[in-house]
Amino acid sequence: MKSDTHKVLHPIAGRPMLLHLIDSVAELAPARTMVVVGARREQVEAAVAPLGAEIVHQSEQLGTGHAVAQAEAALGGFAGDVIVLYGDAPLVRAATMRAMIDRLHAADLPAAVVLGFRPADPGAYGRVIADADGRITKMVEFKDATDAERAVDLCNSGLIAVRGEDLFGLLARVGNANAAGEYYLPDVVMLADADGRPSAVIETAAAEVAGINSRAELAAVEADWQHARRTQAMADGATLIAPDTVWFAHDTVLGRDVTIEPNVVFGPGVTVADGVTIHAFSHLEGATIASRAEIGPFARLRPGAVLGEGSKVGNFVEMKKAVLGKGAKANHLSYIGDADVGAGANIGAGTITCNYDGFFKYGTKIGAGAFIGSNSALVAPVSIGPGAIVGAGSVITRDVDPDALAVARGEHRALPNWAKRFRDNMLAKKTGK
Amino acid sequence: MKSDTHKVLHPIAGRPMLLHLIDSVAELAPARTMVVVGARREQVEAAVAPLGAEIVHQSEQLGTGHAVAQAEAALGGFAGDVIVLYGDAPLVRAATMRAMIDRLHAADLPAAVVLGFRPADPGAYGRVIADADGRITKMVEFKDATDAERAVDLCNSGLIAVRGEDLFGLLARVGNANAAGEYYLPDVVMLADADGRPSAVIETAAAEVAGINSRAELAAVEADWQHARRTQAMADGATLIAPDTVWFAHDTVLGRDVTIEPNVVFGPGVTVADGVTIHAFSHLEGATIASRAEIGPFARLRPGAVLGEGSKVGNFVEMKKAVLGKGAKANHLSYIGDADVGAGANIGAGTITCNYDGFFKYGTKIGAGAFIGSNSALVAPVSIGPGAIVGAGSVITRDVDPDALAVARGEHRALPNWAKRFRDNMLAKKTGK
Amino acid sequence: MKSDTHKVLHPIAGRPMLLHLIDSVAELAPARTMVVVGARREQVEAAVAPLGAEIVHQSEQLGTGHAVAQAEAALGGFAGDVIVLYGDAPLVRAATMRAMIDRLHAADLPAAVVLGFRPADPGAYGRVIADADGRITKMVEFKDATDAERAVDLCNSGLIAVRGEDLFGLLARVGNANAAGEYYLPDVVMLADADGRPSAVIETAAAEVAGINSRAELAAVEADWQHARRTQAMADGATLIAPDTVWFAHDTVLGRDVTIEPNVVFGPGVTVADGVTIHAFSHLEGATIASRAEIGPFARLRPGAVLGEGSKVGNFVEMKKAVLGKGAKANHLSYIGDADVGAGANIGAGTITCNYDGFFKYGTKIGAGAFIGSNSALVAPVSIGPGAIVGAGSVITRDVDPDALAVARGEHRALPNWAKRFRDNMLAKKTGK
Repeated sequence: MKSDTHKVLHPIAGRPMLLHLIDSVAELAPARTMVVVGARREQVEAAVAPLGAEIVHQSEQLGTGHAVAQAEAALGGFAGDVIVLYGDAPLVRAATMRAMIDRLHAADLPAAVVLGFRPADPGAYGRVIADADGRITKMVEFKDATDAERAVDLCNSGLIAVRGEDLFGLLARVGNANAAGEYYLPDVVMLADADGRPSAVIETAAAEVAGINSRAELAAVEADWQHARRTQAMADGATLIAPDTVWFAHDTVLGRDVTIEPNVVFGPGVTVADGVTIHAFSHLEGATIASRAEIGPFARLRPGAVLGEGSKVGNFVEMKKAVLGKGAKANHLSYIGDADVGAGANIGAGTITCNYDGFFKYGTKIGAGAFIGSNSALVAPVSIGPGAIVGAGSVITRDVDPDALAVARGEHRALPNWAKRFRDNMLAKKTGK
Repeated sequence: MKSDTHKVLHPIAGRPMLLHLIDSVAELAPARTMVVVGARREQVEAAVAPLGAEIVHQSEQLGTGHAVAQAEAALGGFAGDVIVLYGDAPLVRAATMRAMIDRLHAADLPAAVVLGFRPADPGAYGRVIADADGRITKMVEFKDATDAERAVDLCNSGLIAVRGEDLFGLLARVGNANAAGEYYLPDVVMLADADGRPSAVIETAAAEVAGINSRAELAAVEADWQHARRTQAMADGATLIAPDTVWFAHDTVLGRDVTIEPNVVFGPGVTVADGVTIHAFSHLEGATIASRAEIGPFARLRPGAVLGEGSKVGNFVEMKKAVLGKGAKANHLSYIGDADVGAGANIGAGTITCNYDGFFKYGTKIGAGAFIGSNSALVAPVSIGPGAIVGAGSVITRDVDPDALAVARGEHRALPNWAKRFRDNMLAKKTGK
Repeated sequence: MKSDTHKVLHPIAGRPMLLHLIDSVAELAPARTMVVVGARREQVEAAVAPLGAEIVHQSEQLGTGHAVAQAEAALGGFAGDVIVLYGDAPLVRAATMRAMIDRLHAADLPAAVVLGFRPADPGAYGRVIADADGRITKMVEFKDATDAERAVDLCNSGLIAVRGEDLFGLLARVGNANAAGEYYLPDVVMLADADGRPSAVIETAAAEVAGINSRAELAAVEADWQHARRTQAMADGATLIAPDTVWFAHDTVLGRDVTIEPNVVFGPGVTVADGVTIHAFSHLEGATIASRAEIGPFARLRPGAVLGEGSKVGNFVEMKKAVLGKGAKANHLSYIGDADVGAGANIGAGTITCNYDGFFKYGTKIGAGAFIGSNSALVAPVSIGPGAIVGAGSVITRDVDPDALAVARGEHRALPNWAKRFRDNMLAKKTGK
């Protein structure tokens, strides 16, 4: 990836790919979730800690079998089922994991369950040779495969399910007599077979086990994810005028009859209720939007933006940690931060809540039905009473009483013909005369 | 569609799909245009009323034949040609409708003319069995078709042309002895045939009769429409740097040598003259733009924006019901609403026309050659004379004479070392010392 | 192209297509670069002059052979190698040109070297009949070709390399006895062959010799160029969340671990260092961005924008000819033009540098660590000292001392209950009572 960020932490839909995988794992309610990591361990640890996953350190990179073996100290004696996944193949679904576990407990009690797939081009993948019931007769690397084996298109994804009581004993017998000198996890299958305990394979779609080894593959998986999410959004009753130009986050929630115009980007944490319209060129993250609100075009909602029913946030408006009451409007060129705007209030064009003094943030309170004249600066902490009016172009540093008018602007001075003389002077200067 | 809006009112290119169809119908100058509607009748009625279409109510949904039969009261005795279309198949062209009518009057005088199509996958569509001249020998539902009939890929679109004097008599004989208990319009074909009056089929492209039954299909039709429009725009002499990122409305008019950068959205009602450049991330609706004007990036033109020759509207500028004279400029972060800006005037960055007092809108007049200093608020109604200058940061509430300078800003006060003391205090507070 | 601009000057990736070609030619360090042009000569001349290319005028359009012959006066007696290219086929790489020249000097000393290609659909292209070593036995127009010749899919691109001492002699013998009455350059091949001097063909990919004859083809070449550039960017270690929505210029330079969100447009002249994040909906041209800076969403960087390490330019902010020091921030709704902002300074929301008086531009200097309160106007020329604070909503027309506070705003006036009376009056007016 040519990156200082660990590969498995590169995001899909705004969430590190590894966390997508752990989310799916969590659906199985596993006893323990362990992440084996080599370099950049601290990055991975910080990311997975909030999800309750444990870190196992692999100080040397000696192959997938070696990686799993590192968990022995923490997991030795564990008698439950173990499923081995890969952080850079994050799209595997919980249903597939569950199917692997179920197969492990089927009547023929396989020693292990391998997840197989049939890619469009099997290329140099290792092949899984199995009978019609999925009982594996041979696992073979491409380079060692006969022509007949290469003609088989069932490939080994590397994912495997195995009983905890078998795992580390088998791994201890895995050798590294290969060109790379690595210990390969899939070798446990043929080792168990040699003990008279065959394994089984189940299949899934190739897309589900797609690995991400470059930024181009990352972008391709992102595109697939987005395509699926857009299709789901439309099926659920949202209109996407140009679906390919709408980018969802992993946790976007959309109501019914939501209309999304072209070019809308959702960051994490956005919930949109029924009947909302999001106009083109809008960027939303961490925002909660009530029904029939109208957003954009060119709106930016940042974390903590809460829009009331039927409220409006228009072009070139930024909202952050701010509540806009029912039917309130901030339609043009405004910054509304750390603010609580009452129902039906109208925020004029160019209004700025001055919420920061370089050290602390302060709140602005605007009462219901208040009218903030255009190009006003509200210097927080400040409170504008319900029904109050702030005159256009005012800098408000003191609280304004309910129903009062506050104006704070300079005196008007007019200098007749000044502009003409100025122009004459300047033109002379410019033309050098 | 999972929507509170009637399906046929979901828009394509900014216009309800049904109106696209009625626009095409209008090219045939029909004696009457009738729309049969069941649920949400009032929505449809409101939409089609301005086009002169009449509404016929279908209180129960008993099939396409039943739907057409509802028009009998209004249309009984009509002796002209009738063509039956579907509001959710809105792309049928007037030329195709005319071809159906023409075929109805061909020498062999068919009883009806069916519009057929050959989809990539004929699937479960009803088949039309016809001879080389399009004379129909059989219309057959897929479920009733023999293997030989299913091998025919000419399918029934459901569109039909028939004489008014035949229509209701035939419909009265249509039965509903089928699984759904519905009256099917296409049954009229075999009923006429039984009378010794065969019908005919003409063909069109599958895309033309595509029906819209989901938001995904709506998006697909929108995409096709946009693709065709972009191709036409380029053929007509516009440069679209990234055609797939430009979204036109149904009525966008573009001149020659217009350059459109990536990510431009046209709402309805935009006319663009020759040599105009529209930079990236611009959103235009209801705007009239004269030659060589320059727009964006990040410009928003709303209804009533009129840009003069060579004028410029730049980034983060919104215009609404405002005229910008020849060569005038509003390049940065401004709101220009209900305004008339003279030729050559310069609107500084951050200028706001304060056009609304919460109840009424008021106009701003800026004379030719005037210069509005940055961050000014012009409180309407107000007039800035030709050649006048408004000092930066002014709040202008009174008219300014031609060639005068007006300044309205606060007195400058300086407090030496105040900032240093403030910082020291704040740092102490922040660090708790 | 239906354009007033010469076809070869329509841009790809922000640079006229002809200049892409001349850039590639320049890699061969040619003795002379000559551009033959007919109509709109002055447009082409102005574009190529800075690259040291000479203009040859072709007053009549009598074919490709005639075009090249126009260079005889300027080039007569030139004994070096000549390669003939086409301005509307601008993607030919220097490596391909060099291969043509190399082939010209191979042991069999061909009289000329033709560049051939094998298109997916050879259609009506002229065919090149050659042996396995690329020795041409026949060049034939499609209309004159036998079926066997038409079955050959090696086509003539029109590009040719030939010795200067041969060129004009051969051209003088080219006739125009064809339907169009034109002199065709490729005829020199068979003329030399008739002299006992066979020519050779080398091949390249069809995409490389793609000609541009319409705006649709221009858009297609642009799309191909962008696709290749995006792929390269990702391979070099940039994350493009939505690669298809990022538009590069011909000279964009990106560092490692740069993250680019959806919908970013690069104009010419942008350099981005390591670890920079460019959020969605940003537009950059002529900007230099140091490591770990953060841009957008909705930022516009214009020529001369220089961003220091870790600095931030946020939403609805425009920068032009302005330096933002290390760690400085301009996060919201600002215009920063002709300015020098010191390290760690904070530019509040809605700040405008008033840099223009209608005639000249003036500079604003903001010292390190200064804090500019929101909605301020800094009227240039003006200097804000290091550590100084400008109160929110101020219009600053005088220099501010280091560590001082400057405030310039109007007096606060409050009118109790005014708003309520106003509303009552207005409501009465609106309702007509």
